[in-house]
Amino acid sequence: MSDTISDGGSRSLIASDRVIGTDVRRPDGERVGRIERLMLDKASGRVAYAVMSFGGFLGLGGGYHTLPWSVLRFVPDFDAYVVDLSEDQLRDAPTRTPEGTDPAEDRDWEERVHRHYNAAPYWGV
Amino acid sequence: MSDTISDGGSRSLIASDRVIGTDVRRPDGERVGRIERLMLDKASGRVAYAVMSFGGFLGLGGGYHTLPWSVLRFVPDFDAYVVDLSEDQLRDAPTRTPEGTDPAEDRDWEERVHRHYNAAPYWGV
Repeated sequence: MSDTISDGGSRSLIASDRVIGTDVRRPDGERVGRIERLMLDKASGRVAYAVMSFGGFLGLGGGYHTLPWSVLRFVPDFDAYVVDLSEDQLRDAPTRTPEGTDPAEDRDWEERVHRHYNAAPYWGV
Repeated sequence: MSDTISDGGSRSLIASDRVIGTDVRRPDGERVGRIERLMLDKASGRVAYAVMSFGGFLGLGGGYHTLPWSVLRFVPDFDAYVVDLSEDQLRDAPTRTPEGTDPAEDRDWEERVHRHYNAAPYWGV
């Protein structure tokens, strides 16, 4: 089954089950992790975050990072999403995920995450 | 694991694995089908379509409908997405999915699907 379509213009679709399970790599090809799920903004229908599992990278234990969707770029040659992030950005990334978060604190958390990755916010866009 | 967060404002997130597998019902609660996958617009990060499997509804055989995301509304009381579509709209829905489609024809297909469901297009929004 083909997972993308293109109309020859700017539109191009990809299936969610093609995104989930895909590797995340650095620009040099080093594997960072794997996409486990997407977080959708219900109001806009926009993908807000990709939750990436990782393990062993940079000597870190296993865990999850919640990455703003806009920092991921699909690179067909790698068959992976590439994140152009420094070691420090990956090492010091906020690992707390929205689960278990006090809802009143979420906006702070979201703003901190987007600042950390220099990502444009998905809200108010 | 909580699957939604809210900041008390207008933002509210939902996990892709909470959407996929969820029932689709009509406003009276009748089950129409189940969401199997999402189709994402790569450029905007927007969910363009939900692919819904169905079987036996209205005497139709099994198959798939590709629904514009904007026609789906989550209703917590049903724990399902509700589509406010007539029997005719469901019976006569374009069943051809983008797979196997001549890419040159996709824009026509997309426009036909959106017209069929009276859905606002996800492109150029």
